[in-house]
Amino acid sequence: MKNLQVGLVQHSCTADRDDNIAHSIKGIREAATRGARLVVLQELHTGPYFCQTEDTGNFDLGETIPGPGTETFGHLARELEIVVVLSLFEKRTAGLYHNTAVVVETDGSIAGCYRKMHIPDDPGYYEKFYFTPGDLGFTPIVTSVGTLGVLVCWDQWYPEAARLMALAGADLLIYPTAIGFDPNDSAEEQQRQRDAWITIQRSHAIANGLPVIAVNRTGFEPDPSGTTAGAQFWGNSFVAGCQGELLAQASSDTDDVLCVTLDLQRTEQVRRIWPFLRDRRIDAYGDLTKRFIR
Amino acid sequence: MKNLQVGLVQHSCTADRDDNIAHSIKGIREAATRGARLVVLQELHTGPYFCQTEDTGNFDLGETIPGPGTETFGHLARELEIVVVLSLFEKRTAGLYHNTAVVVETDGSIAGCYRKMHIPDDPGYYEKFYFTPGDLGFTPIVTSVGTLGVLVCWDQWYPEAARLMALAGADLLIYPTAIGFDPNDSAEEQQRQRDAWITIQRSHAIANGLPVIAVNRTGFEPDPSGTTAGAQFWGNSFVAGCQGELLAQASSDTDDVLCVTLDLQRTEQVRRIWPFLRDRRIDAYGDLTKRFIR
Repeated sequence: MKNLQVGLVQHSCTADRDDNIAHSIKGIREAATRGARLVVLQELHTGPYFCQTEDTGNFDLGETIPGPGTETFGHLARELEIVVVLSLFEKRTAGLYHNTAVVVETDGSIAGCYRKMHIPDDPGYYEKFYFTPGDLGFTPIVTSVGTLGVLVCWDQWYPEAARLMALAGADLLIYPTAIGFDPNDSAEEQQRQRDAWITIQRSHAIANGLPVIAVNRTGFEPDPSGTTAGAQFWGNSFVAGCQGELLAQASSDTDDVLCVTLDLQRTEQVRRIWPFLRDRRIDAYGDLTKRFIR
Repeated sequence: MKNLQVGLVQHSCTADRDDNIAHSIKGIREAATRGARLVVLQELHTGPYFCQTEDTGNFDLGETIPGPGTETFGHLARELEIVVVLSLFEKRTAGLYHNTAVVVETDGSIAGCYRKMHIPDDPGYYEKFYFTPGDLGFTPIVTSVGTLGVLVCWDQWYPEAARLMALAGADLLIYPTAIGFDPNDSAEEQQRQRDAWITIQRSHAIANGLPVIAVNRTGFEPDPSGTTAGAQFWGNSFVAGCQGELLAQASSDTDDVLCVTLDLQRTEQVRRIWPFLRDRRIDAYGDLTKRFIR
């Protein structure tokens, strides 16, 4: 395959699950109409980012895989004959939940899952309470449109994750995300954070010679506990090419559907001029599996 | 130590070694006068970038460590009571040469060496002919101004190198560099390459919560063989803070001395809000020592 048209669906969420799903579906349909054959949704797109508090009641939001989410979006994928990357709160069994990306194929079947490997825990992002760290490894998902290196949000800060997906044969890297500002932070700090988020994901494209797709939610979501000032999700969903160049970028604060044509032959071309994989010092990387060396 | 004033010396080179050394010394003196306690020179600062061709005669340019370079700059470091990062063509024995960074202490002694681990080989950058890959590992150098994660040029494309230096306790990352445009490339390609070079080094700051210092040469150097259009070294030496923010940046095409004050307490602050080291999945990183996973 030479060219792949990809779509990114960025939107805000409310407490109304059906309404959020309707937003996602509307975006997917628009992207498909514009020619997208692969559409990526944002992290946990069926609801508000519930990890702002630690509330046992939120486990009611979990769903099985397969389950209602994969059924709804599987039907849609089959109807539109596209591949869709979902991000669901997976209930594996009582007391065992994951933050899971699911790829549905053009026939509506599940091509594969990725369970978020790196789990954050910061004030307002209490994910370690909800999500058991993934146990499927950094395994790309083979689909009819390519081999997808699907990762999720916090993973984006880890060059190790991107590299392992590339070494396992990923054709592109995909990050459903939910990241926002603390409204109490200064404008300068907010700018540094958003720039860093874009920069490090562009760097994964550069280091590995792969396109990167990042889809973030937008909108303000209050902290139900009233402890923090809530989260202002910063949007800015984007696509970077194999040299890290920005190919498209959404706004900070509005719903958006981005469509971009990726030239999948660029990886071959770029890795010929930047043969980073050739020169990795695998004889000297053993300590990467240590927590700290001292 | 709270604040560290660092200096970066960027300049063009000619075939006249004494003249190049005079340029470096002038820049070091200016940086020291402006308060720098750590000064970093560009890669192979004593001469032209001789790797544009494979010429056995160029091995005459090699020098021992200790040797003339460490003596000259060691005296200067002692006089100015500063730490200096040199980049030399090390002759270890007949037929065994390295691309080696040397850190000289405030008393003129050698604090430590780093032998470039990742060696490029592209048209015009025939380094595999000259430099045996480093055998000192990714070991930071302990100095009176901090623990320096010194790496060299091509290493900058490898997140593994930066991470290993961070895990071994580096306080900052330092990249002497010689990188330039192919004058035959389009302006767009040149822009992508320079942006990528800046972006990936900023990403090492972000991933590891460390400042990054990159010093590149400037000026046009013709290909002695006439095979290529030569190299237009792109300067743009820069310093990034612990969130990847640019603190200072030199021009593309003129000699420059940058001086920046680094707040070394930022690492502690940034790693508290971005505790990436806490969440590394060291149980799942074993395949990073593989060439390819399939």
